[in-house]
Amino acid sequence: MNPMTSTVPAAQERKAPGRPRNAQADEAILDAVLALMSEGQSATAVSIEAVAARAGVGKATIYRRWPNKESLLIDAVRSMKGPIPELPGASVRDDLIAMVTANRSSRSREFGKVTACLLPELQRDAELSRMHHAVMEPRREVMRTILRRGIAGGELRADLNIELTLLMLSGPSMMQGLFGIDTGVTDDDFPTMLVDSLLRGAAA
Amino acid sequence: MNPMTSTVPAAQERKAPGRPRNAQADEAILDAVLALMSEGQSATAVSIEAVAARAGVGKATIYRRWPNKESLLIDAVRSMKGPIPELPGASVRDDLIAMVTANRSSRSREFGKVTACLLPELQRDAELSRMHHAVMEPRREVMRTILRRGIAGGELRADLNIELTLLMLSGPSMMQGLFGIDTGVTDDDFPTMLVDSLLRGAAA
Repeated sequence: MNPMTSTVPAAQERKAPGRPRNAQADEAILDAVLALMSEGQSATAVSIEAVAARAGVGKATIYRRWPNKESLLIDAVRSMKGPIPELPGASVRDDLIAMVTANRSSRSREFGKVTACLLPELQRDAELSRMHHAVMEPRREVMRTILRRGIAGGELRADLNIELTLLMLSGPSMMQGLFGIDTGVTDDDFPTMLVDSLLRGAAA
Repeated sequence: MNPMTSTVPAAQERKAPGRPRNAQADEAILDAVLALMSEGQSATAVSIEAVAARAGVGKATIYRRWPNKESLLIDAVRSMKGPIPELPGASVRDDLIAMVTANRSSRSREFGKVTACLLPELQRDAELSRMHHAVMEPRREVMRTILRRGIAGGELRADLNIELTLLMLSGPSMMQGLFGIDTGVTDDDFPTMLVDSLLRGAAA
């Protein structure tokens, strides 16, 4: 993912309400998409009909809100991720803990497998890939900004590899969620332990 | 994944040859499974017929080697992972680099998405889940052993959380592979940079 192309608010703009929206129906529809996909249906296999049936709405209700299936899938992924959190801003450590915590929301855990099973479709469909990138990249860019601030302020090593550090902050939660791995660390403690492990290092 | 249940060699035993096996046909069949799944077919959707057609063999050739589809899928996942490497054993650092390197084999990268798309099936099928566990767990146990040795020998912190450290060693490669993230680090350098980042820590 290229930081040069990280400012892609197109999907957000699309959500600007041209008409009042029914938040409850929206959520039921997005939940239906995620539920179908987390049961193992590929993005190709998920149909608007099935989503409508699962959500208890008519197909027209879906099409009034989303012009096509791709935009619906991407909004479902975005809803899984939740908003980017307010950062405490006191220290790099606190901000990283806030970001890791946000990425591990219960909704994110519940539907984490969805993203993995979107991947074959992402490779085939450039538009879907662009939209998915637009969901992921702002979060990654916030983390980059925190890390750059840490380097500039002397909290972090000057030679820190930022992209590798992003993977070290996000990869463990993703792997844990995908395989249901029990680390013996509570969900409340995990973000702090991960960030502290990353900062302090494993060497004695 | 529970370390208490990590010694499950059942799938290995099954592979003990009751008759001579044709290694080339085996590889073609396993490649066909991985190719179909990396194109986005779920494990449920992959049929023995399709595998046979793709591999250019008859269905009987497959059934002579694997008693059912589940065992075939798991052997395909195992073939993706490759053998557990010989460990240099000189230092914890060297051994961890060897393990991370092995987990990032070109075959593993090529087919890494397969594992992700197996997950819905793994949740539904206890036998498939048990077999997948038997593939993953020996690798994780080798890494645990390296880390425990490092703690005992004073190379690693006494308070290191081993399960969290496993995720920090494996999660970054998995996330990078799933999303095709470019870190700007070459594949040759990645394992060393990851292990050194983990050991030294990010704090200045």
